[in-house]
Amino acid sequence: MPIGKKCWAIAEGYIPPYSHSTNRELISHETVCILNASDQQARVELTIFFSDKNPVGPYLIFVPARRTKHVRFNDLTDPEPVPKGVDYASLLISDVEIVVQHTRLDSRGEDIALISTIAFGN
Amino acid sequence: MPIGKKCWAIAEGYIPPYSHSTNRELISHETVCILNASDQQARVELTIFFSDKNPVGPYLIFVPARRTKHVRFNDLTDPEPVPKGVDYASLLISDVEIVVQHTRLDSRGEDIALISTIAFGN
Amino acid sequence: MPIGKKCWAIAEGYIPPYSHSTNRELISHETVCILNASDQQARVELTIFFSDKNPVGPYLIFVPARRTKHVRFNDLTDPEPVPKGVDYASLLISDVEIVVQHTRLDSRGEDIALISTIAFGN
Amino acid sequence: MPIGKKCWAIAEGYIPPYSHSTNRELISHETVCILNASDQQARVELTIFFSDKNPVGPYLIFVPARRTKHVRFNDLTDPEPVPKGVDYASLLISDVEIVVQHTRLDSRGEDIALISTIAFGN
Repeated sequence: MPIGKKCWAIAEGYIPPYSHSTNRELISHETVCILNASDQQARVELTIFFSDKNPVGPYLIFVPARRTKHVRFNDLTDPEPVPKGVDYASLLISDVEIVVQHTRLDSRGEDIALISTIAFGN
Repeated sequence: MPIGKKCWAIAEGYIPPYSHSTNRELISHETVCILNASDQQARVELTIFFSDKNPVGPYLIFVPARRTKHVRFNDLTDPEPVPKGVDYASLLISDVEIVVQHTRLDSRGEDIALISTIAFGN
Repeated sequence: MPIGKKCWAIAEGYIPPYSHSTNRELISHETVCILNASDQQARVELTIFFSDKNPVGPYLIFVPARRTKHVRFNDLTDPEPVPKGVDYASLLISDVEIVVQHTRLDSRGEDIALISTIAFGN
Repeated sequence: MPIGKKCWAIAEGYIPPYSHSTNRELISHETVCILNASDQQARVELTIFFSDKNPVGPYLIFVPARRTKHVRFNDLTDPEPVPKGVDYASLLISDVEIVVQHTRLDSRGEDIALISTIAFGN
């Protein structure tokens, strides 16, 4: 069953530039979580917006039918990595309905801090 | 008075695989909070989606009329437990209008971290 | 200018039962933040839902025109205090459009943890 | 492509009155994150609401076409600074569609706490 929207935006974006841990799970990171509850693969175009330069993208993300994909912004490389310690925002355009949630783990200190919010669906 | 939607999605899902505490209140967990403000019992079907295998469910949750139920994903057992340290997402289908909110308590470190967001209602 | 909805729900609710600090600002608490951007006073009826007993309320909250009011659930007394360490949910019905956001400060540990989410507006 | 709404509200607002760090990144602050994905500059009027006095504003924020701007409430000065340790709320009116998210970093303790939520779009 398709649920969600085809267009989603996340106005907040910031990968903390350092981490207290070197364990992948606890490295400072941001994640976009995508749920594709439909019966078709979702082809998602992700664009990153900045405060002082042109948007970068699209980054292509494929989410198979009836699957979720949690993509770290830290792991994006094509067309280019997302810079750390820089304000950004993101826009996702999908060809099928999806649901999008945004999360950050900040491990600059000894204990982690977390944020999460459902994105804005248009 | 019924308030809410009958279909809700949470794109983020991750139960941290360990905890600093053994106190139930402070064990790393995720919760789906359901409010049924209507005058009828809500029968809710919860399905869990993964990145690399078929969805699991439905998990059946009954929320009496004019009650709230905060269900830990850690406590789900039927049809099977939700694995820890694994990305997932969830979908809830109810027969009456409900309101759904998602929360995680992460106690991998000495001090806890929390997230919460209203889910996406369709 | 009126902005918002007249009916709002918060499915999550839990006042941590103890605190590391005795400073009012850092005592574990939950808050419902109400913005009344309209030119009329808002009369808000708040009802608290539980998992195992009938709802309690209404708690009456008056938010003057063009004002915000951040009400701690800990401070509610009439008709009765909100119990600590207990799952609850809440429903707000206003006679003018308002905007509602939910926040928790958890200071059970040495360092605080925070959550916040916009509520669900019907 | 324009995405979002022209009117947004954030009911929560509170800049913690002190910080454990003097590093700008880790000073207690609140931020309003604005994404303007359209092809026109956005002129945004921000108004701050209080519990016990008239609203202050508008604060003018210009977000160029296809850019994001993350504005710290701590940095607002015109018409006047936003007081610390005081409850407030905010309203944003834009001439083009934007997306708005709210974040707080609280560094009163040794380790930071974070909140974030998508704002309410009217």
